[in-house]
Amino acid sequence: MLRDESARSRRRIPGPTVARLPLYHRALSVMVERGITHVSSSELAGVVGVNPATLRRDLSRFGTYGTRGTGYEVPHLLARVDGALALDLDWPVAIVGIGNLGQALIHSRGFRSGGFRVAVLADVDPAVVGTMRDGIVVEHAERLPEACVREKVRIGVITTPASASQSVAENLVAAGVHSILNFAPVVLALPAGVTVRQVDLAAELQVLAFYHSRPAGGAVVPEAKGEAGTATIEISS
Amino acid sequence: MLRDESARSRRRIPGPTVARLPLYHRALSVMVERGITHVSSSELAGVVGVNPATLRRDLSRFGTYGTRGTGYEVPHLLARVDGALALDLDWPVAIVGIGNLGQALIHSRGFRSGGFRVAVLADVDPAVVGTMRDGIVVEHAERLPEACVREKVRIGVITTPASASQSVAENLVAAGVHSILNFAPVVLALPAGVTVRQVDLAAELQVLAFYHSRPAGGAVVPEAKGEAGTATIEISS
Repeated sequence: MLRDESARSRRRIPGPTVARLPLYHRALSVMVERGITHVSSSELAGVVGVNPATLRRDLSRFGTYGTRGTGYEVPHLLARVDGALALDLDWPVAIVGIGNLGQALIHSRGFRSGGFRVAVLADVDPAVVGTMRDGIVVEHAERLPEACVREKVRIGVITTPASASQSVAENLVAAGVHSILNFAPVVLALPAGVTVRQVDLAAELQVLAFYHSRPAGGAVVPEAKGEAGTATIEISS
Repeated sequence: MLRDESARSRRRIPGPTVARLPLYHRALSVMVERGITHVSSSELAGVVGVNPATLRRDLSRFGTYGTRGTGYEVPHLLARVDGALALDLDWPVAIVGIGNLGQALIHSRGFRSGGFRVAVLADVDPAVVGTMRDGIVVEHAERLPEACVREKVRIGVITTPASASQSVAENLVAAGVHSILNFAPVVLALPAGVTVRQVDLAAELQVLAFYHSRPAGGAVVPEAKGEAGTATIEISS
């Protein structure tokens, strides 16, 4: 664990670098699956959509440097990135709101990899509470706090209707869950010390509309690419 | 339409500014709903999670300047942002893959506002093809190209399994759809001139894990906030 501790003890990693780590994680995971053992910084930068200097600077913050000629060793680099993201730890997740989006997340690969595992499901619909999803019984939302404590949940995901999201978030916080991913279109009011990431599935549609309405260089090719606090990669344009 | 044309004719809007426009759009929409008529740049910046100077610079690119003392007029500013995003145009969308995620998107508010409307649905599952979702009959994916041409689809959303996504994307492009939002965990290979935005629902989980594993200042409070090419806002930390 020395590697991870050393990575984790580093201080003051800039937010934009943090936001790019999932992109590196994903690109490197695909390379490992394909048996690719080495990658140059420019190749990796091209896949991720950042410029190579940004990529080298990001990775150097975690003590990784490519070798001229051979580049980076892929499995080693993936381990460093995952260590930096703490994906080698166990991350029990609660999903509250077992509608279409909640079910989509339960079955998505990202929610069951890299240390993440769905540990608690909750809803208020009598037709859903008590049913089994992916080996887990859906609890009534009233019992969310005790379930979170029991399962040592560290991240709460809110996929409820907007009207329920604030009280669900408060219940999560009361149960000691201080990291929340909110898909409900509501700005949550929560105590300091709670980290909320808000996901807006329509934001990307709007960005597409912007570029679509400005063909042929109406906008700069997005430096946004990897400069992103983001769930997205701009692959081509 | 002078306003929109003038906004659209401006050149070289930086990608990070574009990526922040949906955040401004959402914050301002909430304010309009609540009857708020004026907002200062620092208030709006606080809601969105960017610094006020960034916000003022972004908005000035579209010719909007706040007034000292009263700030911005909310409905006017929203109209300018929407004009910049071309949300005043009609944006017929095709969703391919009517599983849980596809259904979640059909019903999400963002996919039926700001000019977006779901115009074509397609799948290959015989149990789904021919059924009605939200007033639209699900077509067989084989008939996707003709449906896209018929409905003048401008944006294609791919929510299929990974294995199907490349061929679906090619069918969309063949039907003249050059803007694609891809939720499948696959890097699509498409001709130049096609804009693909890749959405990874797990990336935000990974960012949460990063901050969670570094309590008490282990990382800079994310400048990522609005400096984002992003579907997310960091609200607090």
